[in-house]
Parts: sequence; structure tokens; C-alpha cells
Amino acid sequence: MPSLQPPRHGAVVFVACAALAACSIWVETPDDRRVGSWESEGVAALNLADFEIVDLTHAFGPETIYWPTDTAGFQLDELAFGPTEAGYFYSAYALATAEHGGTHLDAPIHFFEGGIDAASIPLERLMGPAVVIDVTAQAAADVDYRLTADDVDAHEAEHGEIAPGSIVLLRTGWSARWPDALAYLGDDTPGDASNLHFPSYGEDAARLLVEGRGAAVLGIDAASIDYGPSTDFIVHQIAAGAGAPSLENLTNLDRLPARGATVIALPMKISGGSGGPLRAVALVPRVGEGG
Amino acid sequence: MPSLQPPRHGAVVFVACAALAACSIWVETPDDRRVGSWESEGVAALNLADFEIVDLTHAFGPETIYWPTDTAGFQLDELAFGPTEAGYFYSAYALATAEHGGTHLDAPIHFFEGGIDAASIPLERLMGPAVVIDVTAQAAADVDYRLTADDVDAHEAEHGEIAPGSIVLLRTGWSARWPDALAYLGDDTPGDASNLHFPSYGEDAARLLVEGRGAAVLGIDAASIDYGPSTDFIVHQIAAGAGAPSLENLTNLDRLPARGATVIALPMKISGGSGGPLRAVALVPRVGEGG
Repeated sequence: MPSLQPPRHGAVVFVACAALAACSIWVETPDDRRVGSWESEGVAALNLADFEIVDLTHAFGPETIYWPTDTAGFQLDELAFGPTEAGYFYSAYALATAEHGGTHLDAPIHFFEGGIDAASIPLERLMGPAVVIDVTAQAAADVDYRLTADDVDAHEAEHGEIAPGSIVLLRTGWSARWPDALAYLGDDTPGDASNLHFPSYGEDAARLLVEGRGAAVLGIDAASIDYGPSTDFIVHQIAAGAGAPSLENLTNLDRLPARGATVIALPMKISGGSGGPLRAVALVPRVGEGG
Repeated sequence: MPSLQPPRHGAVVFVACAALAACSIWVETPDDRRVGSWESEGVAALNLADFEIVDLTHAFGPETIYWPTDTAGFQLDELAFGPTEAGYFYSAYALATAEHGGTHLDAPIHFFEGGIDAASIPLERLMGPAVVIDVTAQAAADVDYRLTADDVDAHEAEHGEIAPGSIVLLRTGWSARWPDALAYLGDDTPGDASNLHFPSYGEDAARLLVEGRGAAVLGIDAASIDYGPSTDFIVHQIAAGAGAPSLENLTNLDRLPARGATVIALPMKISGGSGGPLRAVALVPRVGEGG
């Protein structure tokens, strides 16, 4: 954007704004003579300098947390590392992972027969305005805390109604426990997922968010959109049934405002996949540093 | 953005714009009395409706093209698919792949000892203004065509100098041949990469783009940022040596303007990885449909 000088008294300024940063300005004198104009070059490109970029993703590596029944974890096998005969350096690896470990996406087909697969989720659903609901206080007092419809009501009373297409992110504070699997999951006994404890969404809140408000996506900074002790995974069923993917094992939600950030959640494009590795970022407007 | 009415003659309008779409407007009368004001709520969030979202990513599946020496390809193994004892539907898979097949990222460590790994590439480098250089005509006439410094000069003469931090995308037209490995690579003999033919960057152009212009990333809609017959992978060496990742096997570059789109390239965050699966998208401003 250009720097704008206050026009002199008596002048008339017409301002017409189209898309982002694309403004046309005409300055006219009282006798209707145009004395100047400025226009940006077409519709402006996104100016990333206007945003702080926050990575919502844990890295994949030996410490990545998987569901206790997944004992293989993340595998990275060296194929090459070092100088080649031709004289240049070369390194390469192969990887193996279950879809649902680390920071990952659940596609609707994960919990809903007939739901779409990971590759088929429209990008427009995975990119949208973030709504961050903070239950760190409740979760600190109760590791099995579940978000309630009353919590959603209270959030809306403070921040306004949640708009259709929102990407709802539940901030429990659990990412601070990563990569300590025992602290993060409540139990790290290999092969046993019967004694897990961590906070998440509750059934009524999930129905309100997905069915009532039309949330596009449910995300969380803990291991699952169902709380640790869940056996019916009802929140997964609700979200998947409504076509809403979920984002699990996110991090850095404490760096987002309750409203105003934009999430861009790009999963690995796995044809037929029920989910998979996810790279999710948030664009947070730089307040007071406008450009 | 609000609809703006042309102010009446004699009024003075002050306009101050901060970040995207965050404008404050004061309307004053000639005698300096403020008669109205409007201000957006803080700094505005990104309005994705202002952009067309283009997926630059081929899906991973049985048809995904890998380097001929990688005969394992993409593996997706079913872990579960069907009703559970608890009554709900559940499906899940595990995946395995080499880092450098399908639409993927090359991290600097892939071809430069001491270069950074996939997880350490700053997101700011992977998100930036796209510069699309079209060599479809040259490549149609010569499958081994390499972008020249003269081609870059000609592009700049038409579209302006390439700015530091640009994400340069070479459009060869080769994505139309996907997933026909023989047509795409020039040879699909398993285990033999000695007879490949496809277009890409040339050495001088790569030096000009990366070292001269400070391009942040080199991308291409073919299998490699070095052309098929390369044996020294000099463009990889140049890019990696300058800390520039590359994006290979992209698609849909024909849907981007030469300038004006923004690329968001989010690789799987593999700690220690030399590259990996990539989901790349472009945000193309919607011309003439301003919001």
C-alpha cells in the first residue's frame, strides 16, 4: 500500500477498493478537475509480510508420538549419505509411518463409511479462519476434560458467533507435554490403549460446532478429537459424518489469537488414504505493523 | 471492505490503510468537524475468497511416478476397513515411500553436505510470490531442453526483474504426461536411470536465478530440476549450495499467471529428512471479482 497524505482542504478524494490492497484513488478539485490518480497493478498478490507465520506442526522423527497400539512409529531409512563417484554429495531416505501418528489429518473415511478420502478433501475446506477455544485451565484441573456446549456459548459471547467454514482449534495446552508419551497420552504401555487420559472435545460441543455452526474442520493440540477414555469415538463419528476432517497433535496454538488467524492445513495427498501426515500453518495478522 | 460512497463536494476524507483491508476512514467537513468514521476490527484476517486456490500436487497412489531406480514406489497398506465390534466404521492405513518420488521437496541436504534438512527450512522461504517461466514451446520441440539465461532475460523483459525471495516455477508442460512414466521420464526401464529425457533448468539459468536474483525456491512440473540426461546434477548442486529447496513433479502450472500468484509449499516435516512428500498450492488473485 502507498503512503497516503491527507488531502488539502477542499479536495475530494474518491477511494475504491477491490480485492486485497487493490485500491484506486482519484483526487479531484472542487471544480471537478482530476489532478491525480494512483492505481495498483491489477488485483494484488497476497502480501505475506502482513502476517506472522506460525507452524502448527510437530516434526516427524524418533520421538514422534503414535497411538500405543502402533508400535512401529516413524521410520526413516538411509538410502544414501556421502560423496558419490561423480564427485558430488548426495543423501536420500525412505520413510514409513501409519497415517494417524504425529501431526496428522483424519479424512472423513477414517470414521465414516462412504466419507471422502484424504486426497479428495477440497483445499477450500482446509484453508480458513481459525477459531481458537482455550480450555487450558479446565484441562489443567481435569486431564479428562471435554469441551462442553456451554464452553462454546461462552466463547461466542466473548468473540462472536462461529462462522460457517471456520477451522476450530481446541487449545488444551497438551502440546507442552510433547514428546513425553506418558504425560501426553496418560499411558504409554505398548500395545495397550485402554488407559489413556487427555482432554478433548465433548459430544454436545462437537454437534454444536459441526452441525450447528458448520465448522469445516476440528483441530486439537492433543492426540485425538475424542478424549483419552473414549471407547465410541463419538466426536470422530460426528465430524466424519458431517464431512469435516480433523487435525490432531497440533502445536503452537498458544501463539494464535481467539479470532483473526487463517489456518492453512495441507495434508499429504494420499489417494484412498484415511488421513496422513499434515503440515499446518497459521497466518496471524501483524497488529500495528501494517504494510 | 465496506462500500464507499463518493463524499459530497467540499468534504475532506482521510484514509489510512494499515495491513490488508484494514483501513480507517474519517470524513470531515471544511470546518474541521468530524462527521463520521469507520474502522475495521483490528488488522484484517486473510480473505481467501479473494483468491482461486490451485493445487500444484499430484496425488500419491499406485500410479505415482518414481525415479526408475526406485522400484518400490508408493505403498499403502490397509490396517483396518469396516465395522468395529463397538459398532462404528473404521479405516486406517500405513504408508511407505522414498522421499524423492511423486510431488516432493528436495531439502538442501539432498545435494549439499551441511545443507539444512526438510524440517529446518523456514516456512517463510516456502511461501512467496510465484514467477512462472513458460518453456512449453521449447520443450515441445526438444525433450532435453534446458532453460537458458537468455530465457530468463526475455521473461524479465516482459514481466520485470525477478525479486529476491521469489518461488520460480518452470513450466515445461510435462505434467500433462503424468502418470505415463515412459512419456514423462523418457524411459521407464526398472532400475535404469541412464536413458532419461525430459526438459528442465540449465546451469547458467540456475545460477542467474538463485545466485543472481536470490530466488528462494526452484520448482518444476517435470521430474527433476536437472534435465533427463544429467549426470552431474549441477542445478541441484547450485540450488542446494545456495540453501534453496526445490519442488519437483508439480502440476497445474498452466493455471498460474506469470506473476501475481502466491505459492504455499508445505512439505512433510521430517526431522533429518533430505526432502519428502509435498503439498503445494497457489493462491491466484481473482481479477475483477474484488471483495
